[in-house]
Amino acid sequence: MKQIQQMTLAAEQASQLLQAQNLQLVTAESCTGGLIGAVCTELAGSSAWFFGGVMSYANEAKERALGVRPTTLAAHGAVSEATVREMCQGALALGGQVAVAVSGVAGPGGGSVEKPVGCVYIGWQRLGSDAIVTRFQFSGDRQAVREQTVLSALQGISQVLNNDTK
Amino acid sequence: MKQIQQMTLAAEQASQLLQAQNLQLVTAESCTGGLIGAVCTELAGSSAWFFGGVMSYANEAKERALGVRPTTLAAHGAVSEATVREMCQGALALGGQVAVAVSGVAGPGGGSVEKPVGCVYIGWQRLGSDAIVTRFQFSGDRQAVREQTVLSALQGISQVLNNDTK
Repeated sequence: MKQIQQMTLAAEQASQLLQAQNLQLVTAESCTGGLIGAVCTELAGSSAWFFGGVMSYANEAKERALGVRPTTLAAHGAVSEATVREMCQGALALGGQVAVAVSGVAGPGGGSVEKPVGCVYIGWQRLGSDAIVTRFQFSGDRQAVREQTVLSALQGISQVLNNDTK
Repeated sequence: MKQIQQMTLAAEQASQLLQAQNLQLVTAESCTGGLIGAVCTELAGSSAWFFGGVMSYANEAKERALGVRPTTLAAHGAVSEATVREMCQGALALGGQVAVAVSGVAGPGGGSVEKPVGCVYIGWQRLGSDAIVTRFQFSGDRQAVREQTVLSALQGISQVLNNDTK
């Protein structure tokens, strides 16, 4: 429950910065499956700053809804910097001016030595700029990994927008 | 919290029926903004039956990500049977074999005499069949309306799949 309050707070902070700069957020969500969007749209009036996004759970969804290249998925995997970079681009192609994209291993299955459970790539991109992609290693169960992903994704939006105004 | 448990239970029931028929679910979410997908992907192993979907919050997102026609939105509004019908079609065009689409007035703003807060259209469509769209009138605040929408959307999947097997 504490985590839910933290996610809502992070969404509120992101929303204030987005609205101050008249920007809309677009999301591309794999391991969170829509949870970032759900947290954002819990806030009344979110249509002013939340454009929408894609729940790109299956690889085919990444390809068809976001334009992620099959060759990128084959070469780097769905949980990779390269895929998240293309997810950001695909999200911005739909609309909005700030994209956040996430792809990771929420568990309990799907982990490997190279990319264990809790490994999540998060990318942020402003229209006209390159994406910034960071690899995280979260701990805990599936729910904990997903909630930490949402939190970091939303907090990162604030960082990206704050940096741009300096 | 009781509602969260109900949503999870409805997702589990839908997942069992989808897996029994080897079908994948695709969602098109306006007023829920990804909450249906978030509830589905909370369940471990959801990649077996959850394809993904679109958070079509802005009208432009409905048009660009789901192919909803601007003329439909202009003539009937975003919260309408006609729009939800096209959202179902657009979702199935991305992938999956069973679509659920929702568009409604979660509130507190945005209500009208014709479509007050709590008015939500939910549509279900199986690939190769026509969509079934129902208008609901939910009560309560924004969160209550959204959670009732998720619950009805997921319970409806079970009904659609159960009916098909009879």
